[in-house]
Amino acid sequence: MPDADHVFMERALFLARRAASWGDVPVGAVVVRDGRIVGEGANVRERDADPVGHAEIVALRDACRAAGRWRVDGATLYVTLEPCVMCAGALVSARVARLVYGATDPKGGAVRSLYEICDDPRLNHRLDVRGGVLAEPCGAVLSAFFRDARRKRRILAS
Amino acid sequence: MPDADHVFMERALFLARRAASWGDVPVGAVVVRDGRIVGEGANVRERDADPVGHAEIVALRDACRAAGRWRVDGATLYVTLEPCVMCAGALVSARVARLVYGATDPKGGAVRSLYEICDDPRLNHRLDVRGGVLAEPCGAVLSAFFRDARRKRRILAS
Repeated sequence: MPDADHVFMERALFLARRAASWGDVPVGAVVVRDGRIVGEGANVRERDADPVGHAEIVALRDACRAAGRWRVDGATLYVTLEPCVMCAGALVSARVARLVYGATDPKGGAVRSLYEICDDPRLNHRLDVRGGVLAEPCGAVLSAFFRDARRKRRILAS
Repeated sequence: MPDADHVFMERALFLARRAASWGDVPVGAVVVRDGRIVGEGANVRERDADPVGHAEIVALRDACRAAGRWRVDGATLYVTLEPCVMCAGALVSARVARLVYGATDPKGGAVRSLYEICDDPRLNHRLDVRGGVLAEPCGAVLSAFFRDARRKRRILAS
């Protein structure tokens, strides 16, 4: 039986696949408050030439635009990949209450892998964290994207 | 004799004062490449209800918009206050070559105070860092802002 976290992560996974369709690393995110989606995002860094175009930040800004404030107190953010330093910092800064992520990022993850930014008692906010929700499909969409990219590079180079 | 770093920091300080004029914590930033300013920003978090509206990110996005790409290789970012976790992560992520900051932020700084994000050999990029440029006036504009804010709150509460 899928719980609510799985249902929202499925939506984030759908958004991740969209990012792949326009050539960005497939990561997707949704912001949920009171059981409703209030913000959505997919990676647009390449597409929009936006240095902060990661899915988490696109979803956060979407939620804030709708609410008319820069804080999203009480919200849960779902994202298909463990957040990087920038995004983990943004989650703390925007006072997100809870983070649910899918696949682990051993090379760049800043929530469990390289740092524990979301649990630092020295910062002015901490989040509840749940990792590994739909980790397998969230990771598989990334692996497929990078496999494809390598194949294309080989064809172009040959 | 002021060096180039002081000249660009003066501009960041001018932008910081602008942020105070619209009620945001006064922090300003500029992005410089080949001796020319290619991006500018001031804190707009309250004004624009933008969770990533810190001066560094506004300046980075400005530079990337002009260049049409999400990387700012070879650039120096000047900012009046030591960057937070989110902004330090954004600088690494956007491949900024060098960071020059003014005042230290003992409570939230992620470049020297709480973390050394810009020097982490595990991340995919590192920056040269110079802190303390015009630290006194950069800090003074912040102190004056918070003193004013406390005074206003006292008047409203009385």
